Amino acid sequence: MNKNENVSRNTRAVAVVGTGVIGSGWVARFLLAGWNVRVFDPKPGTSELVEATLQKARRFYPALYDSLPPQEGQLQFETCLESAVADVDWIQESIPERLPIKRDLYAAIQQFSRPESVIASSTSGFKPSDLQVGAQRPGEIIVVHPYNPVYLLPAVDLVCSPANPSHFSSTTASTLQEIGMLPLTVRSEIDAHIGDRLLEAFWREALWLINDDIATVEEIDKLITHSFGLRWAQMGLFETYRIAGGQGGLAHFLKQFAPCLELPWTKLTNTPTLDSALAEKIQQQSDQHSGDISVAELEEIRDTNLVTILRGLKSRNWGAGKFLRDVENQFLPLTTERAPTGPMKTVRRVIPPDWIDFNGHVNEARYLEMFSLATDRFLSIAGCDEKYIESERKSYFTIETHLSHRGETHDGETVQVESYCLFVSGKKLQLFHVLRHANGELLATGEHLLLHIDLDMRKSCLPDQFVTNQLANFANLHGGTTLPEGIVPKLAFK
Amino acid sequence: MNKNENVSRNTRAVAVVGTGVIGSGWVARFLLAGWNVRVFDPKPGTSELVEATLQKARRFYPALYDSLPPQEGQLQFETCLESAVADVDWIQESIPERLPIKRDLYAAIQQFSRPESVIASSTSGFKPSDLQVGAQRPGEIIVVHPYNPVYLLPAVDLVCSPANPSHFSSTTASTLQEIGMLPLTVRSEIDAHIGDRLLEAFWREALWLINDDIATVEEIDKLITHSFGLRWAQMGLFETYRIAGGQGGLAHFLKQFAPCLELPWTKLTNTPTLDSALAEKIQQQSDQHSGDISVAELEEIRDTNLVTILRGLKSRNWGAGKFLRDVENQFLPLTTERAPTGPMKTVRRVIPPDWIDFNGHVNEARYLEMFSLATDRFLSIAGCDEKYIESERKSYFTIETHLSHRGETHDGETVQVESYCLFVSGKKLQLFHVLRHANGELLATGEHLLLHIDLDMRKSCLPDQFVTNQLANFANLHGGTTLPEGIVPKLAFK
Repeated sequence: MNKNENVSRNTRAVAVVGTGVIGSGWVARFLLAGWNVRVFDPKPGTSELVEATLQKARRFYPALYDSLPPQEGQLQFETCLESAVADVDWIQESIPERLPIKRDLYAAIQQFSRPESVIASSTSGFKPSDLQVGAQRPGEIIVVHPYNPVYLLPAVDLVCSPANPSHFSSTTASTLQEIGMLPLTVRSEIDAHIGDRLLEAFWREALWLINDDIATVEEIDKLITHSFGLRWAQMGLFETYRIAGGQGGLAHFLKQFAPCLELPWTKLTNTPTLDSALAEKIQQQSDQHSGDISVAELEEIRDTNLVTILRGLKSRNWGAGKFLRDVENQFLPLTTERAPTGPMKTVRRVIPPDWIDFNGHVNEARYLEMFSLATDRFLSIAGCDEKYIESERKSYFTIETHLSHRGETHDGETVQVESYCLFVSGKKLQLFHVLRHANGELLATGEHLLLHIDLDMRKSCLPDQFVTNQLANFANLHGGTTLPEGIVPKLAFK
Repeated sequence: MNKNENVSRNTRAVAVVGTGVIGSGWVARFLLAGWNVRVFDPKPGTSELVEATLQKARRFYPALYDSLPPQEGQLQFETCLESAVADVDWIQESIPERLPIKRDLYAAIQQFSRPESVIASSTSGFKPSDLQVGAQRPGEIIVVHPYNPVYLLPAVDLVCSPANPSHFSSTTASTLQEIGMLPLTVRSEIDAHIGDRLLEAFWREALWLINDDIATVEEIDKLITHSFGLRWAQMGLFETYRIAGGQGGLAHFLKQFAPCLELPWTKLTNTPTLDSALAEKIQQQSDQHSGDISVAELEEIRDTNLVTILRGLKSRNWGAGKFLRDVENQFLPLTTERAPTGPMKTVRRVIPPDWIDFNGHVNEARYLEMFSLATDRFLSIAGCDEKYIESERKSYFTIETHLSHRGETHDGETVQVESYCLFVSGKKLQLFHVLRHANGELLATGEHLLLHIDLDMRKSCLPDQFVTNQLANFANLHGGTTLPEGIVPKLAFK
């Protein structure tokens, strides 16, 4: 689907056993990171569910980045466990939360799997030492617990037991980092690890609120999304409270709220029975809140929102957005495939879903966003990079822009920008960008007049010698070029 | 600071008593919604703290919107309680969490306050019936519990007791909606209301994780911000789990996880003692995580992130972003102040902090974002509005754009766009936008050639008669106009 020309960095193989919501998410996560994936789940309808998840992941995962992720690995559905697990580096288990069937599965897997291959369980609650009981090679079994949707959210709880070899925690962590995930290594194994402990406390309290008619499903959800949910997308519990303490910081906060631990502010000494009456009540209230939107539609809304939030945090270089930047920096840069003559390839990317406007195509402002990125990358190659801007306190400002639209582009499509340096003289610079669909179709052009600026004086000035020379080289290469498709530049310096 | 020309919709008055982080946030929230605010707090340094909060709120609150919020009310620091509360509609109390001093304060307030004026407590945990004990007019006392930062996060727990008159819940809810907040009315009073019950359960579990060395402050915060924190910024607990259940929905999820309530997945049967040793441990870990960034810097980062996330959700018309749209729709529209001749005033707004790029000014793509919004609003007035686009399946597409930059603009500055219709003929339309600083300084111009398009055929076609007539009127008014400051259009249809 995505005409991805980046070369895969590895051809490692994973077996994904169990393909519910979480298992399918793992298939997508590994596959989109370039791994070959073997899927095993004897229940009927497996391939349909996996394909449906992949369709979503192929649409949303690349939308997180401003460069193309590596090429997809190969997907294979296996009809027996042996062929799935026999020759892989990693086995990810995501079957129901019942200890005996998990243990039986590991026994079956280890009959066929290579010694040293990792068996990672997605379990929400069981400890590795629970899972390892009776295993032939217990040291290969660990917990790697992800969050749904697995193809978008990076965090995982990584849990080892004393039975795992000492290097296991760091080697499995490296593998998880390779597939764009953030492993949080639990310091000593515990039921429900880190995340699910917090979620379970929260969940049980929420069940009480429903059970006791304090609030409805909708009211609780609205409260979360209009208050602390927004905070936690970008700072965690402790960092948030560090600020809430005002100038006194966390110390003040801790002092202020320590006595409240004695107050009856939760029902934590007891849990409600989630019997059919309470389940029915929650179900009805949830139907009332979200029932007019199908689960599939909700999923699409969620994924688009997550992409929007993550891209926003990426623009701030903060939290999960900073993490995504680091992941993207490992993608193969375009420079390595640039021909020394022709135009520069400055951008290759997938259109994110939140760029689409009410006309059903990419909004015009996003074209300039892509051309602006193309200008930044071109200038960076010419020596006017982050370091130059920061240390020299000099940069280029655009003074005039001409955009011409020739075609439409949509959500999920791969596009690329080729950049020409048409003219350079002293502090003046003229760039020309051509935006194409991956199939070559011309979508738009952007022409830009720029001036080199002293950032402290906010006045034009000459660039440094290295930048001057680099730009002169590029102008020599491109300046006399006839632009493709009979395009004629329109702008000129006075 | 913001040259806000919108007329205030009301001149209601509030007294804010207690000016810590929460109290100062209330001052900002009311003031920026157009209320007159009287502040009372006998402790020294009150006005400095309030002014510091106001500085942040003035920067970040208007950045949430693409129109100007109403004009600020008047701020007054009072030296005695009587003058603060004597003649106001609402008294917001945010003093420390100790029942006796809260009750004493209410007694003092009710000596001077008008009967029927609301006394709202920001308490995190006490019930209204606790607060009302011994009061002269208990029915005026309620809980209105906000979330920090109060000037950005809309949710509040609104809690009444049987002593409050029956209309109290709905009238106070209306008032909260007027100041841009989302009141969630607790159905029956309970310690810690809704939000703080959930937060308290979460907090106690997190304290255990630190106490038992399962994870550090940083690890817990990273896990939250890289997993469910992102989910909860846009869907709450139940909606998230509705999706996690896959095609089986919430029913499947509830069935799957009901047995887990029996498992020891939390330490909820007990709470750790937050003694000085645990407090010290948390403090040290937090310093290690965030210690190189001051609380003031963290606050600025948090607020910029929240604005970014909220603006992202606003573009999706979802969750807290949908809520903000509804708030913004109540701002005074520019149309009511438009002169029938001259150019149209299409945009008046504040520059959000996340629009600033590494050159220390608004990024070029945001200029086109503003001009694109100006085009949408111009077309909407001409009859090509949401309804037309949806029902007729016709709209305008930009085919060529020319931008010229004349000045710089920065975070927090108020800017406006004046729009001219230079030419219209059949399906062809030429618009010209002039972006100015609120002080009149010319910042940029945008010139746009558009074609009227059939959205199903994706081909140009004639607009409907009403739109044709409207545009002809505007072209008659503006077409012969000499543009200001000697600006000359550059584009023309072939």
